[in-house]
Amino acid sequence: MAASAGIQRTIYTGPFVHSISLTELEICENGAIGVDENGLIAFVEKDLDLRAVQERHSWQDATPVQAKGNAFFFPGFIDTHTHAPQHPNTGLFGKTTLLDWLQTYTFPMESSFTDIKRAETIYRNFVSRTLSHGTTTAAYYATIHVPATNLLADICLARGQRALVGRVCMNSDLSPDYYRDASVSQSVADSKASIDYIRSIDPKGSIVRPIVTPRFAPSCTAECLSEIGKLANDEDAFIQTHISENKGEIALVKELFPDSQSYTDVYDTHNLLTPKTILAHAIHLSKEERKIILARGSSLSHCPCSNTAITSGCAPIRDLLNEGHTIGLGTDVSGGFHPSILENVRHAIWTSRHLALQSTLGDKAKLSTEEALYLATRGGAAVVGLADRVGGFDVGKEFDAQLIDLGNVQDGGLNDGMFDAGPVDVFGWESWPEKIEKWVYAGDDRNTTAVWVRGRMVHRTTRYATHQVNGTATP
Amino acid sequence: MAASAGIQRTIYTGPFVHSISLTELEICENGAIGVDENGLIAFVEKDLDLRAVQERHSWQDATPVQAKGNAFFFPGFIDTHTHAPQHPNTGLFGKTTLLDWLQTYTFPMESSFTDIKRAETIYRNFVSRTLSHGTTTAAYYATIHVPATNLLADICLARGQRALVGRVCMNSDLSPDYYRDASVSQSVADSKASIDYIRSIDPKGSIVRPIVTPRFAPSCTAECLSEIGKLANDEDAFIQTHISENKGEIALVKELFPDSQSYTDVYDTHNLLTPKTILAHAIHLSKEERKIILARGSSLSHCPCSNTAITSGCAPIRDLLNEGHTIGLGTDVSGGFHPSILENVRHAIWTSRHLALQSTLGDKAKLSTEEALYLATRGGAAVVGLADRVGGFDVGKEFDAQLIDLGNVQDGGLNDGMFDAGPVDVFGWESWPEKIEKWVYAGDDRNTTAVWVRGRMVHRTTRYATHQVNGTATP
Repeated sequence: MAASAGIQRTIYTGPFVHSISLTELEICENGAIGVDENGLIAFVEKDLDLRAVQERHSWQDATPVQAKGNAFFFPGFIDTHTHAPQHPNTGLFGKTTLLDWLQTYTFPMESSFTDIKRAETIYRNFVSRTLSHGTTTAAYYATIHVPATNLLADICLARGQRALVGRVCMNSDLSPDYYRDASVSQSVADSKASIDYIRSIDPKGSIVRPIVTPRFAPSCTAECLSEIGKLANDEDAFIQTHISENKGEIALVKELFPDSQSYTDVYDTHNLLTPKTILAHAIHLSKEERKIILARGSSLSHCPCSNTAITSGCAPIRDLLNEGHTIGLGTDVSGGFHPSILENVRHAIWTSRHLALQSTLGDKAKLSTEEALYLATRGGAAVVGLADRVGGFDVGKEFDAQLIDLGNVQDGGLNDGMFDAGPVDVFGWESWPEKIEKWVYAGDDRNTTAVWVRGRMVHRTTRYATHQVNGTATP
Repeated sequence: MAASAGIQRTIYTGPFVHSISLTELEICENGAIGVDENGLIAFVEKDLDLRAVQERHSWQDATPVQAKGNAFFFPGFIDTHTHAPQHPNTGLFGKTTLLDWLQTYTFPMESSFTDIKRAETIYRNFVSRTLSHGTTTAAYYATIHVPATNLLADICLARGQRALVGRVCMNSDLSPDYYRDASVSQSVADSKASIDYIRSIDPKGSIVRPIVTPRFAPSCTAECLSEIGKLANDEDAFIQTHISENKGEIALVKELFPDSQSYTDVYDTHNLLTPKTILAHAIHLSKEERKIILARGSSLSHCPCSNTAITSGCAPIRDLLNEGHTIGLGTDVSGGFHPSILENVRHAIWTSRHLALQSTLGDKAKLSTEEALYLATRGGAAVVGLADRVGGFDVGKEFDAQLIDLGNVQDGGLNDGMFDAGPVDVFGWESWPEKIEKWVYAGDDRNTTAVWVRGRMVHRTTRYATHQVNGTATP
């Protein structure tokens, strides 16, 4: 059952790229990353050939995997906020914004997850999809249903994708009567049941962990929020919820919780702001609210595709980074229209450029390519409590990685118009920083040729074969 | 040499989708489009089976092509503004905005097109790329070089992509001394030479046509603009240029043309605003400028990917549509980071949502899905002077189309994690409007399974084979 069982010692050779700080991307053109039987990075070498690496570490028996041509290794992406059951609604939002979107698209879809066969089809497909986009870790919202939520955890464990999996708590009458928890006690009992199950299938939480998931303040009564906060504390569990996404939502929270100082205060007074709390969106927070979140050590999930698609707003991420917040990226499927974190890297940059255009901050609002990639990897790792385990290629970390392969334009430009290698055209004269930039701005899942979690291969395309060294088997 | 040579009469059966007005998309679930030997649409039937269609029109000998499963026919996209020689710079812009971006990336790349071999590689690759994204017509800026510009026209004609191809005029010292026209007379003579060549290879302009292309006001002296305006008039040719993209650029125009009332007035007083003029960007125009453009009957090319990427601004497209402007979409490679019009359909919608967020207009600023698709097809057709020939499936129009095919999620969600069918997951319960929306918001070139221009197949992927009817050859 252990995801790392059966891994051969492997040396990943060729270029690798990762964030070494918020503003710096390291590009090592001739690297070698040694990954041991437990999926841990045993060594990282720069500028040594394979034989020299093998000799230095006495790893002559290790399997080599070589990034050839315009290929490089990059850390796996971390999706800090997504709703797996909404996957079939991806791209559907029409003219709605948050509150009517929930009633029109979201609740009818989620309520169908009483049907476990349907849940299996959707969840298997979605986990495959997110892996194919290089997402090695995801914080998933499931539905209110315990069996389907547990199934999602089973699928993540079987496929080897790291996940926080949360049964959604929602007992207020914002939710339709066909889709909500019957009582506070049921909210707590069902959440506890799912936590217990997920801990039973992965006791160490190496791959899947439970997360307490009150949908958002308007979905829960004050009593429910209190009891859920208590449960999270008793279980020492992660918590995820939404905050300050939409102005109508903020007004609704004020109406529903008249005694609270702010949206943030609602969560704070119900003991839901902890160092293990992930708050999605955080677009319209006041300075005061930001201070409380910072003081509690809670983290933020920035979901730019979603925020643009359902016209929620532009989260001021540069400001929030300057204040010291811990931030990752989230796809927020299906408010977000794409399951790819790379798409959200781009949209984090676009959103910051729109902020630069509309505010007096100008260029100071802009996120750089390096910063957006940091949020997608090390930033996200910190949000989901894995900063010491994943997010970069450091000795002692676990090997969560993607092999990115870019296409090669042939002389004469002839390829019969077929572009199986994906959307990026490399002509041969580009520098490595330019190749990385081309991938960031024009790449897609076709470029993600293989994906590993903790050293285990969890996805590959047919093009991966070109990177295997003669005679070596696929791990 | 005629692009329509050798076409068999063909009946395209299955669902088709096209704009019938700015706000209405027609979805015909059981259509049949008859295309004759000249690539013209001879009939459009709804709700008749193939045999009945064949009998009604006595077309028993016609080749059937069937859109099966989640597939449908859609008009080819029209890219009203793109720079073919900048294709290798796609995704490269770093922290630059317009004026420094030109000096850092654009001029060095374009100047290399003295090397005709290099030009061939880039242009062939780019025409293949844009065809693969369903672009059946493009308004191309080339470089200042006549041989390379003519080669681009040759490639478009050979591949069967409709194109306006323009040799770029730029004689002012904004351009570096290594890349500009030596004199006004050279600007005119070289432009004339390219016009003559393009008209020699396609005398009727069925596929390729020349377009007079003063880069933008700051790139040309007043004398050059006058002479180029005269040339366009003498040749009865299309004109393309840039307008009001960036605030620094606008200030520069004011400085360079102190006697002009506005940026628009610069072009107007040099006789460059005609019903055959395409003005790219048009972000920061005054009300007065918009009135002049409308009075002259010139058209606009909206380039949302570019405008966001190089932080130019948000063009107020809904306002401009309300005023009656003729508008299409442009990829503006490589200010734009993507050669796909579908990507620009999405970004036109995102840009309008950012305008809705920041202005008092609110929802009135939003472009709908239907409107954005109209801009990409019929809107673009009007911009490039082909409103009566392409843009929709109307009897008498030429058949410029793409076969869009969406993936099918298998029961159980099992597909080994391979997504060759592209990024869109259709589960089987979606309505046709929902399938279209999924394609618009999550689709890519993998869904563009085949492309036709004037009835000639100009691109197909391996998945096209599933849509051929037994025993029929590929046209």
